[in-house]
Amino acid sequence: MSFLGAAAHVQPAAVLIGVPYDATATFRRGCALAPAAIRWASQSIETYSPILMRDLEDLRYADRGDLDVGHANPEEMVETVRAAVAGIGAGVLPVLLGGEHTITLGAVRALRDRHPDLAVLQLDAHTDLREEYEGRRLSHATVMRRVADLVPPERIVALGLRAGTRQEFAFLERYRAWSPRLSVTSDVWTWLRPRPIYVTLDIDVLDPSDAPGTGNPEPEGANAGDLLRFIRLLGDLPVVGVDLVEVSPPFDPSGRTGVLAAMVIREILLAARGS
Amino acid sequence: MSFLGAAAHVQPAAVLIGVPYDATATFRRGCALAPAAIRWASQSIETYSPILMRDLEDLRYADRGDLDVGHANPEEMVETVRAAVAGIGAGVLPVLLGGEHTITLGAVRALRDRHPDLAVLQLDAHTDLREEYEGRRLSHATVMRRVADLVPPERIVALGLRAGTRQEFAFLERYRAWSPRLSVTSDVWTWLRPRPIYVTLDIDVLDPSDAPGTGNPEPEGANAGDLLRFIRLLGDLPVVGVDLVEVSPPFDPSGRTGVLAAMVIREILLAARGS
Amino acid sequence: MSFLGAAAHVQPAAVLIGVPYDATATFRRGCALAPAAIRWASQSIETYSPILMRDLEDLRYADRGDLDVGHANPEEMVETVRAAVAGIGAGVLPVLLGGEHTITLGAVRALRDRHPDLAVLQLDAHTDLREEYEGRRLSHATVMRRVADLVPPERIVALGLRAGTRQEFAFLERYRAWSPRLSVTSDVWTWLRPRPIYVTLDIDVLDPSDAPGTGNPEPEGANAGDLLRFIRLLGDLPVVGVDLVEVSPPFDPSGRTGVLAAMVIREILLAARGS
Amino acid sequence: MSFLGAAAHVQPAAVLIGVPYDATATFRRGCALAPAAIRWASQSIETYSPILMRDLEDLRYADRGDLDVGHANPEEMVETVRAAVAGIGAGVLPVLLGGEHTITLGAVRALRDRHPDLAVLQLDAHTDLREEYEGRRLSHATVMRRVADLVPPERIVALGLRAGTRQEFAFLERYRAWSPRLSVTSDVWTWLRPRPIYVTLDIDVLDPSDAPGTGNPEPEGANAGDLLRFIRLLGDLPVVGVDLVEVSPPFDPSGRTGVLAAMVIREILLAARGS
Amino acid sequence: MSFLGAAAHVQPAAVLIGVPYDATATFRRGCALAPAAIRWASQSIETYSPILMRDLEDLRYADRGDLDVGHANPEEMVETVRAAVAGIGAGVLPVLLGGEHTITLGAVRALRDRHPDLAVLQLDAHTDLREEYEGRRLSHATVMRRVADLVPPERIVALGLRAGTRQEFAFLERYRAWSPRLSVTSDVWTWLRPRPIYVTLDIDVLDPSDAPGTGNPEPEGANAGDLLRFIRLLGDLPVVGVDLVEVSPPFDPSGRTGVLAAMVIREILLAARGS
Amino acid sequence: MSFLGAAAHVQPAAVLIGVPYDATATFRRGCALAPAAIRWASQSIETYSPILMRDLEDLRYADRGDLDVGHANPEEMVETVRAAVAGIGAGVLPVLLGGEHTITLGAVRALRDRHPDLAVLQLDAHTDLREEYEGRRLSHATVMRRVADLVPPERIVALGLRAGTRQEFAFLERYRAWSPRLSVTSDVWTWLRPRPIYVTLDIDVLDPSDAPGTGNPEPEGANAGDLLRFIRLLGDLPVVGVDLVEVSPPFDPSGRTGVLAAMVIREILLAARGS
Repeated sequence: MSFLGAAAHVQPAAVLIGVPYDATATFRRGCALAPAAIRWASQSIETYSPILMRDLEDLRYADRGDLDVGHANPEEMVETVRAAVAGIGAGVLPVLLGGEHTITLGAVRALRDRHPDLAVLQLDAHTDLREEYEGRRLSHATVMRRVADLVPPERIVALGLRAGTRQEFAFLERYRAWSPRLSVTSDVWTWLRPRPIYVTLDIDVLDPSDAPGTGNPEPEGANAGDLLRFIRLLGDLPVVGVDLVEVSPPFDPSGRTGVLAAMVIREILLAARGS
Repeated sequence: MSFLGAAAHVQPAAVLIGVPYDATATFRRGCALAPAAIRWASQSIETYSPILMRDLEDLRYADRGDLDVGHANPEEMVETVRAAVAGIGAGVLPVLLGGEHTITLGAVRALRDRHPDLAVLQLDAHTDLREEYEGRRLSHATVMRRVADLVPPERIVALGLRAGTRQEFAFLERYRAWSPRLSVTSDVWTWLRPRPIYVTLDIDVLDPSDAPGTGNPEPEGANAGDLLRFIRLLGDLPVVGVDLVEVSPPFDPSGRTGVLAAMVIREILLAARGS
Repeated sequence: MSFLGAAAHVQPAAVLIGVPYDATATFRRGCALAPAAIRWASQSIETYSPILMRDLEDLRYADRGDLDVGHANPEEMVETVRAAVAGIGAGVLPVLLGGEHTITLGAVRALRDRHPDLAVLQLDAHTDLREEYEGRRLSHATVMRRVADLVPPERIVALGLRAGTRQEFAFLERYRAWSPRLSVTSDVWTWLRPRPIYVTLDIDVLDPSDAPGTGNPEPEGANAGDLLRFIRLLGDLPVVGVDLVEVSPPFDPSGRTGVLAAMVIREILLAARGS
Repeated sequence: MSFLGAAAHVQPAAVLIGVPYDATATFRRGCALAPAAIRWASQSIETYSPILMRDLEDLRYADRGDLDVGHANPEEMVETVRAAVAGIGAGVLPVLLGGEHTITLGAVRALRDRHPDLAVLQLDAHTDLREEYEGRRLSHATVMRRVADLVPPERIVALGLRAGTRQEFAFLERYRAWSPRLSVTSDVWTWLRPRPIYVTLDIDVLDPSDAPGTGNPEPEGANAGDLLRFIRLLGDLPVVGVDLVEVSPPFDPSGRTGVLAAMVIREILLAARGS
Repeated sequence: MSFLGAAAHVQPAAVLIGVPYDATATFRRGCALAPAAIRWASQSIETYSPILMRDLEDLRYADRGDLDVGHANPEEMVETVRAAVAGIGAGVLPVLLGGEHTITLGAVRALRDRHPDLAVLQLDAHTDLREEYEGRRLSHATVMRRVADLVPPERIVALGLRAGTRQEFAFLERYRAWSPRLSVTSDVWTWLRPRPIYVTLDIDVLDPSDAPGTGNPEPEGANAGDLLRFIRLLGDLPVVGVDLVEVSPPFDPSGRTGVLAAMVIREILLAARGS
Repeated sequence: MSFLGAAAHVQPAAVLIGVPYDATATFRRGCALAPAAIRWASQSIETYSPILMRDLEDLRYADRGDLDVGHANPEEMVETVRAAVAGIGAGVLPVLLGGEHTITLGAVRALRDRHPDLAVLQLDAHTDLREEYEGRRLSHATVMRRVADLVPPERIVALGLRAGTRQEFAFLERYRAWSPRLSVTSDVWTWLRPRPIYVTLDIDVLDPSDAPGTGNPEPEGANAGDLLRFIRLLGDLPVVGVDLVEVSPPFDPSGRTGVLAAMVIREILLAARGS
């Protein structure tokens, strides 16, 4: 099952890749089921966005299915993601469907190789900046620290953050900017504008009332309307890669987190096309 | 089980009728269970509305139970609804508990016969204006197009709309007015004021965070408070019929969509009484 | 399992006590499971509050486990709670995890003995002011009437109220103040400021979209952000006791009501420490 | 929605009546939703029974919808049931869809008036023989004691019983026969054969693995195959009334208890036709 | 995520292919999510079968991921399946993970081309022999009739059948053999023994107590132990292809149907290896 | 809330202790919620066992509540359990409510100190005999290996085993006896008879159809009736300690695993009393 009307185009503008991996999840597993659930939910939404006034049917994009990472350890999985993203031609937007947040590191490795001045825009409830977690240097709780080993912190902007240790919040001071809300100052927007940007979107950036289907729901998040409005603006930025992570179908009995995730992907695809 | 304190009045001001029908649902069925679930949930709310400062116990209304439409095809079901609504005396408000949105056509047929200048006020996420869907001219996805065959589009006002095809959104230009929000301009309100109005309320007009129990949840909807405020204003309009459709109990594990639907019905009954 | 990092301190500043009781629930039971569910959910949140900029690890508090009230009748349960709260030393904040709202009466009895001028601050959707309910004078639906037998109504402030009978709303006029919202006038705040205050927090004060896991969800409630902001202000008041009641895990399939409850408790503990 | 293909026959052989009532349930409510859920589930089964080799399409039966008992107290509800059953012509089989077990008393009152030598065959996990329960003489926990006030215990046979107090099990000695299993000795079968029999089937007679959707699941029950085999034999007995009670949709997330209940009703209708 | 330890072997003995398709489902959709759910559940079982005393780690098999059939109509989907199965080398066992039962037709087309004397062994609750269903000649309810257009009925054996119309049961008389149970006579076994056999396993052949997660649960099915014992015997037959269909994760809240399906696949792989 | 009617006896014959711990669970956490869920479910069963013809009301037993192990590492938790069991007087039966299987080691340490010739009877689906699992020597997957470090394997009998690695099944040959079924030969029974026995009961010994609420359901298990029959025989053995582990409420939406667990505890208490 591919995402909402994706077809096999010779020269797609965007490529979806599923990364069904949740091996480092510690509290409530299940986000490995997200790529299938998001594709399935995409059947219940329209291809047309009345706000962007664009239609997926006018867009060339492809769904490459899932990477085979079920039995990989975290480092092997990250390498598989890196290779897959590196294999996508320049000028084609990779859109990853996680899986847990750890997958981000693979995409950042690939894109930093291509764009040495890569900037990272993180939408997330959690800082994910631990140096180590439960004996692992590479996990959903440390992934942004590993990203910050590759991309200098002053090239990272993080929005929606509202959970972490005191030490993690202290580290945030080294970022270009961060906020508990989904908004940036015009200075930061101006700084972002000319740079190749990787966007990593952890669904838990949203309030649990909008996205209950996730492993670690965190109160006081943004609402879905705020997120969709923000995403539609991304068409103005030179985005070179995107991921959507941590959707967890077992905790989404009404199915609405999957539907929202499908809509987020649709708007990302349609907004990006505008760039 | 009848709705919250309904009794057998000789001359009721309002009459509830259940229409447990979901045969044309394609993605996730279940709204045929809504009449029973809404009546059951009504046991957990009070008869008194502190905002309207009125009490259902002071109101004469009756619950006529459910229509027998389980084995009907869509056209037969619509005719059954039409006959039931037509059989209710003038001056008595029919309130239909769906079931899927297709039931609306039956009520509109009956009330347009009685009120040739009937206006329709649609609260809905989806335009429901396809000419045909999965080979059917009559289904939840085409119902408003069939309504627009009966009631001229310039007598239809639609609020909350945020999903449809490009063609459907083009058709909306023929409506008196439409908006993605639950609000109307004073011009439209003035236009509505003297007319007999049928109100069709698809629960998915609400945001999925407030009404997860529905077949096709659509992000970026109104919240429950907005809807309740809007409904309480309807007492100022000459409403001649109401339906509440597409509540789907199987996707409402916490039961709160049923409770909200019960409260919507209570406020409709109490607001209408004020007219 | 104790709450998030509670340890056995010789002189704790706060003490948690679970009261797993739901015997008078009539519509949907389950809140007796809340103490275990909230403690379990506390594992998924951090000890640090980036808004209060304080950390539970710097706080001395203890978790005394659950009271044994499973087979008690309501009056016996209330007496057990009273004795437990009375047994906590002066200067130590008792924090009760319900269980149904009826438990509040036990805490109020203990604290009114200690503080004859006790004031009560109720955060709740329901007035809970019936004189009697289903033949019982002591139940979740009458608990605030019983509190008002002990604490003069002019020393009670109630926020978030939006459901009750006409008679109950009439009784509210005898309160110091009440509102359907989570806010007080500066007059009321000034009045509260110097008094020993007991705070009873019924989770259904929140909107069902934020707290679906409760027995009687009531639409049009406050959102979680509003509640957390209000709670953080409580550090400015001389709070002498707190309870959190009516969380019901069986109606919380995504688990997010439990997580939110854990966070509410964390912020109460951290805010109180500031006083 | 009527049960699987029921039509409006002038002279039906059987009549279905829903009794959506659960007001005396104390632990987990929800069986008032069963009539709607069983009718809905009946859509997913066939009209043909390959074991009985008969088809519902060849049978004249009618579905009279639900009785309006939502706001009745137990005694009023029982009287409403009695009147409804009494109103069905002799020679027509009444089949009641509960609702809680208390409804049985109404049917027994009506049929004992018609058949002074009425026998009762109870299929149930619980004895339901308390003299009083939570202050009520009439509830799901006392219903068979009330039946035994009307029908002499020596005309009652009870199968599947495995839960009750010591006193209730002592009372069983006054029954014609009882067993924890779904089987009768040939003596008892011979005794039953010539008598007008009322069959009351509490779904919890089944093992919880087969019928999880019930308020008080009790381990060590019969399996569905045993029950269906037993029911098919009832065509050999002069059954004059049947009920199926205590199916509770909120505790049936997979929906299979509703499907099984629909099939039980189908086989009862088809077997009875054979008599 | 690939199935339990599948690796990229140069010459696999068996190949898994997912077919996430449920477009013709009419009552309760969801089986398109099964391939992902079964692979995920496979993580919770061991690679070793203590009954077969064999280990998947000693077996060369591969998981080819999912076919892209999400937007296909039934005929296109069947053709995609046919081409995929035809592309697998002779001597390699194709194992399909549905998806709905309709996928079987694609595999049968491919394998009948390769083995003109192909026999079909159907394990299923439903006959699936309608000539047409809801206007479609090709759907889950007609698939075996379409198979019987290709493979003469006297080369079909069907076990577990217990639901269908009278006409469908009449058609069964043309099969080599059929039974409501999971057993064959020695005559039939002898007949099957030398033939190339395609096995289609609809999970609803099992009792709903063992496999609740399916769209149309049918009481009186085989239990899981019976099915597993039967499957282990298949190593004695020259099986040339297998499918497992109709697992539906949305109706499997405990997740155990997915685990059982994973175990069925493991035992099929291990048993086949013995042939 | 204490278990079904437990009271504060001066000299209890049995003592219940909850151990809400699930920190080493890797696939699906939740069994830390079991002690609360089992006590709550105990409210829905009777105190009388019609099969044993005994009543809990005639038994002196106590419920000591839960141990505080939420933040302990596995070794600390085991030590806390050991100390608690050691603190119970000789002649009093300790009954532990897990929590994960790892808790068993604590009880075995305490009881082996008291009874150097302690025998262990394991009822379980999984061998739990790994030397190490995910880098831990002490976890739910290694617990019986750690027990076998303390109690010689020839003093261990294991029933119900059907999942493990080839190496684990090889190790089983060193046990006194093992079987995939819940039965022992008369030789083994004779061997057990005179010895002090610790019984560890992992709920997954049951088939998932009877006990869906567990972290790692394994098909082909015993049914509830078999287990209850076996347990009732334990009154004939000199049992000195019992645990019930791995019940997981989040995967038990119908609540029946909790009810069954409560009944297992009731029958254990009543059977033991007979010794």
